[in-house]
Amino acid sequence: MTGSGTASYRRLGVAERRAQLITAALGLFAHRAPEDVSLDDVAAAAAVSRPLVYRYFPGGKTQLYEAALRSAANDLELCFAEPENGPLTTRLGAVLDRYLAFVDEHDAGFSALLQGGSVAETSRTGAIVDEVRRAAARQILRHLSVPDPGARLRMMVRTWITAVEAASLIWLDEGKRPPAAELRDWLVDHFTALLTVTAASDPQTAEVARAAFALEPPDGPMGDLARRVAPVVAGAEHLLPGLSG
Amino acid sequence: MTGSGTASYRRLGVAERRAQLITAALGLFAHRAPEDVSLDDVAAAAAVSRPLVYRYFPGGKTQLYEAALRSAANDLELCFAEPENGPLTTRLGAVLDRYLAFVDEHDAGFSALLQGGSVAETSRTGAIVDEVRRAAARQILRHLSVPDPGARLRMMVRTWITAVEAASLIWLDEGKRPPAAELRDWLVDHFTALLTVTAASDPQTAEVARAAFALEPPDGPMGDLARRVAPVVAGAEHLLPGLSG
Repeated sequence: MTGSGTASYRRLGVAERRAQLITAALGLFAHRAPEDVSLDDVAAAAAVSRPLVYRYFPGGKTQLYEAALRSAANDLELCFAEPENGPLTTRLGAVLDRYLAFVDEHDAGFSALLQGGSVAETSRTGAIVDEVRRAAARQILRHLSVPDPGARLRMMVRTWITAVEAASLIWLDEGKRPPAAELRDWLVDHFTALLTVTAASDPQTAEVARAAFALEPPDGPMGDLARRVAPVVAGAEHLLPGLSG
Repeated sequence: MTGSGTASYRRLGVAERRAQLITAALGLFAHRAPEDVSLDDVAAAAAVSRPLVYRYFPGGKTQLYEAALRSAANDLELCFAEPENGPLTTRLGAVLDRYLAFVDEHDAGFSALLQGGSVAETSRTGAIVDEVRRAAARQILRHLSVPDPGARLRMMVRTWITAVEAASLIWLDEGKRPPAAELRDWLVDHFTALLTVTAASDPQTAEVARAAFALEPPDGPMGDLARRVAPVVAGAEHLLPGLSG
């Protein structure tokens, strides 16, 4: 391993070397808290010397952490891309599958980053995380086909994204239970629920919900939810005396 | 003012002086980011000298910020207390009214604290915020009358609390629009929605939902939601072909 590392030491250009160091750093930062990763660890993982790491990242660990985070943020934003056709819940489910796989792959680093108070946290790392959240919100609004979303719809989308983040952190905290597919289904159900009640007080969201519901087939995620919700809602029939009986 | 400040300088005991400095600090930290508050500001607000502030808080601004945060956290936890009777949505609404009044009163400080990356952030401030979140979750589970909540129910409650926090930050960001009462109603609707869909896949939550629904009167928040949701859900009737017609 050291032999091939030394060989690549000679061969790699500046951009490749930088990319190699970032990949090595990301591999370490993904599974440990930033305070548990040293520059020596990164040098060892990339099979290069510590001075070489410093030559590429004179700002040391903070700079390397930010570069690794930026790289991970780009990967994560790619997860959000999804063709704009088919039922909305199926699209959300596909994006969530990729998102949860990302969370699974970057578990300790994801927790350390989002739980805050990390020594590696800077205004720049905060800005990178916020940009990922904004990218996620833009993608969802694109799938809702709303060119000019109002305040309520934007708040709904941003609130759901935060809920997804929070649920992911709890999921990691609980040893990745329940299975990712169950968590995905619950998060899709959560979105449907939030869309429905927001539509109940906001005309723009009501239009979005109508269009989204029309595309959902009875054997899709929303049809499945409707069948499971029906007996629950039956317990609230007294709230709509005009409609029952 | 300086005269009466000097008079109280002589008169106050240690505990009172400490409390006075914390109150002065909290008044400043509530409406500015921590980096925009100096010890001189605190000394001026309390009408005492800077050395006196240091005598009580040798750790300087960080120590004073933590003490102010702890005091605010205690106030906030008091907001959560609510008698365990009446419909659940009415209780949640009352707690949210107090919570949003607190957010309104501590606007800039609340944003700076929860948006992270603040210079005053320490592992202790993080721990204080987490304890408030845990206290909120305990209170809600108490109102749901669940002595031994399962993973799904706990995740539901914690996720909703994060959603409330996120919505509060967006609310501050948007110049406190919509009016607090509208935001409260939407957050209560959000809770009802989340309880309903979680009940659709978790037997324990289903039992909690049944008990909660039974206590809701037709002219309460949940009855109001049911009437507003009915036309929205009508657009999804094709998902339950067996029940329609």
